[in-house]
Amino acid sequence: MRAEIIAVGTELLLGQIANTNAQYLSQKLAEVGIGVYFHTVVGDNTQRLLQTIRLAASRSDLVVFTGGLGPTQDDLTKETVAEHIGVGLEINSPAMAHIEAFFEQRKMVMTENNRKQALVIEGSHVFTNDYGMAPGMGIAHEGTTFILLPGPPSELYPMVESYVMPYLIQLLPDKQVFHSHVLRFYGIGESALEAQLLDLIDSQDNPTIAPYAKEFEVTLRVTARAATVDEAEALIAPVEQEIHDRLGQYIYAIGESSLHEVFVSELKRRGETVACAESCTGGSVASLITMVPGSSAVYNGGIVCYTNEVKHRFLDVPESVLQTDGAVSETTARILAESIREKLGSTYGISVTGVAGPDPSEGKPVGLVYIGIAAEGMPTVVKELRLAGKRHAIVKRAAKYALFYALQMQKER
Amino acid sequence: MRAEIIAVGTELLLGQIANTNAQYLSQKLAEVGIGVYFHTVVGDNTQRLLQTIRLAASRSDLVVFTGGLGPTQDDLTKETVAEHIGVGLEINSPAMAHIEAFFEQRKMVMTENNRKQALVIEGSHVFTNDYGMAPGMGIAHEGTTFILLPGPPSELYPMVESYVMPYLIQLLPDKQVFHSHVLRFYGIGESALEAQLLDLIDSQDNPTIAPYAKEFEVTLRVTARAATVDEAEALIAPVEQEIHDRLGQYIYAIGESSLHEVFVSELKRRGETVACAESCTGGSVASLITMVPGSSAVYNGGIVCYTNEVKHRFLDVPESVLQTDGAVSETTARILAESIREKLGSTYGISVTGVAGPDPSEGKPVGLVYIGIAAEGMPTVVKELRLAGKRHAIVKRAAKYALFYALQMQKER
Repeated sequence: MRAEIIAVGTELLLGQIANTNAQYLSQKLAEVGIGVYFHTVVGDNTQRLLQTIRLAASRSDLVVFTGGLGPTQDDLTKETVAEHIGVGLEINSPAMAHIEAFFEQRKMVMTENNRKQALVIEGSHVFTNDYGMAPGMGIAHEGTTFILLPGPPSELYPMVESYVMPYLIQLLPDKQVFHSHVLRFYGIGESALEAQLLDLIDSQDNPTIAPYAKEFEVTLRVTARAATVDEAEALIAPVEQEIHDRLGQYIYAIGESSLHEVFVSELKRRGETVACAESCTGGSVASLITMVPGSSAVYNGGIVCYTNEVKHRFLDVPESVLQTDGAVSETTARILAESIREKLGSTYGISVTGVAGPDPSEGKPVGLVYIGIAAEGMPTVVKELRLAGKRHAIVKRAAKYALFYALQMQKER
Repeated sequence: MRAEIIAVGTELLLGQIANTNAQYLSQKLAEVGIGVYFHTVVGDNTQRLLQTIRLAASRSDLVVFTGGLGPTQDDLTKETVAEHIGVGLEINSPAMAHIEAFFEQRKMVMTENNRKQALVIEGSHVFTNDYGMAPGMGIAHEGTTFILLPGPPSELYPMVESYVMPYLIQLLPDKQVFHSHVLRFYGIGESALEAQLLDLIDSQDNPTIAPYAKEFEVTLRVTARAATVDEAEALIAPVEQEIHDRLGQYIYAIGESSLHEVFVSELKRRGETVACAESCTGGSVASLITMVPGSSAVYNGGIVCYTNEVKHRFLDVPESVLQTDGAVSETTARILAESIREKLGSTYGISVTGVAGPDPSEGKPVGLVYIGIAAEGMPTVVKELRLAGKRHAIVKRAAKYALFYALQMQKER
């Protein structure tokens, strides 16, 4: 099945927003084995949109639109697709009731143009919008299926997950499920990971193996297609085992959660707590941990010890250590981790001290970072890292390494 | 002049990356008054790329490509554009010397496919790649100008700024400059800002006024076209004054710097320092400040006082205040700001305490946030906010409000 994605909206052509909807939809279509051959962005203009629809219909089996379903004069997608097909629009009663309820709940007066949102293409299958007003729709015409979806990601994503994917899977030649495991890695780059798995990636067709890099982490999605989820699991299992055998040391979780989410959830499950003493990461570790809802149950607090004075006065690093070993040293990292753990009475104490740049410090190179992990009843561990990149990347990577090492320590405890 | 942008790369069609290059190029073209009518993404496939080039050439005066200039077999852009035009490729000597020097410097052996990157379309104007190996190029054919640029943003952006924009301005019918001022706002949303300036935005043609929202801040770009920069400045001045008269209280800077960058740079200039006591923002204020290169000269450190115990033990908030007023209160915010300033001997002390959610705390609603700013020789100010959104948005907004209020205090000092 050949698919393409058309995003409608002048704001995209002005560069006010990036076309992240096309990225999201491409990922979703790839997951069920549908190949995407083109993305197009076209403005809110009937003639150019019609030209784009005709071209797409001539070359694709599936055309997915986002945007242009709203209440204003600029919103033209369904009108123009209906024109191409040669049908009209009709009021969809459930959508109209949904829109009226929306205004009723908020005690707002509904303006007439909002009724326009309840219009759908005659004969189309309607997708409910659980997070907004404009419904989506799907309709087949002369061998091409057109799917029209709202532009705001907050409405698009849930509509796709709940209603569009099941509809699409019905269209596929063989009734099958697509089932994925997401393996989450840290401490290895995307290209190094790919190099170590290249033979698997190239030779595997079912399951497929796709690496992604995002926010300084790498994930690997292993997707199998089969008649049932159990059969898909059976296809995934040996491949996942092989990946584990090669790169298990870098895998910190299976699933959709990021490092800080996995760490906080493990702390909660075990009834443990953590505290941080951060120098070069300047609060980034604390910030990641406290971004997780419910982190207040496991995060005691921390100190951003940017200056030597704060390291000495608040965290008991002796002047002599700061003068001989320096602030960026194994000894300082060890004392910081142990001090913050003791002072805040937490299960774990995490420390980070290093040179984030752009200039060297204490004669030490940019990218040199020490991470200390103190844990109740265990010897403190200090790791030395040499991180590449600019200041921003060094700080973000160091913060994630701190969480990765804390997770490793937690597994051993 | 009608333009369109074509991004070449299967990774875009797989959803591995978003087409942020098209967004960036659209903004740059809009700045010089060139209208973009289509974005297309096409994979690494000669036939589909050729089809896309032919369509673009038939309807546009300017076609800008990104991607597909690299060393591998998959990189097809210049070969395919040359095929469309009916010319060959030739070695560009400066580009070849640049590539050889790149490998020489790194003491790496150059593989043969890297030579491919020095090939350019016969008769094209070559854009130097200061941050990579593949040069860009521009060539006109039958009324359409084709511009081919590398895909990696780290190479694309500097090439566009240094070489492509001057080349494009030459193509414009009237010799003119485009000159912008960027006004940076905080404390007002994009739609509220637009509503207050709608008459100006709609009626102004030169200068144009374009609002953008990014990372919880709003910016307004005022762009004038004129024969000289001075004439453009003269066109911008009265419009900027009018915007100032209406919304001056929300403007924190003119230029490309974000809130934390402006604050750190002002601290440096004045020889001042800052320290933070953060509860609900969990280190986000410290993290923003310390992300700025050179912040170690102005940032003393801070305490993430997530629990009441830390607020009491480390920052002297009396138990009685925590029991009567609560941790989320004006009194606590005031004491936290003053304590951290005194303990760290800094010019300013910033505190944030609030309910980030998802659940209410102390019977106080999600989104209630108090920000305290203590400054040497000035009475402490505490601001109460009611922020909307989810946990992540509340934390990010609160952290930026803290910096915004600190900047306001700094202006008065």
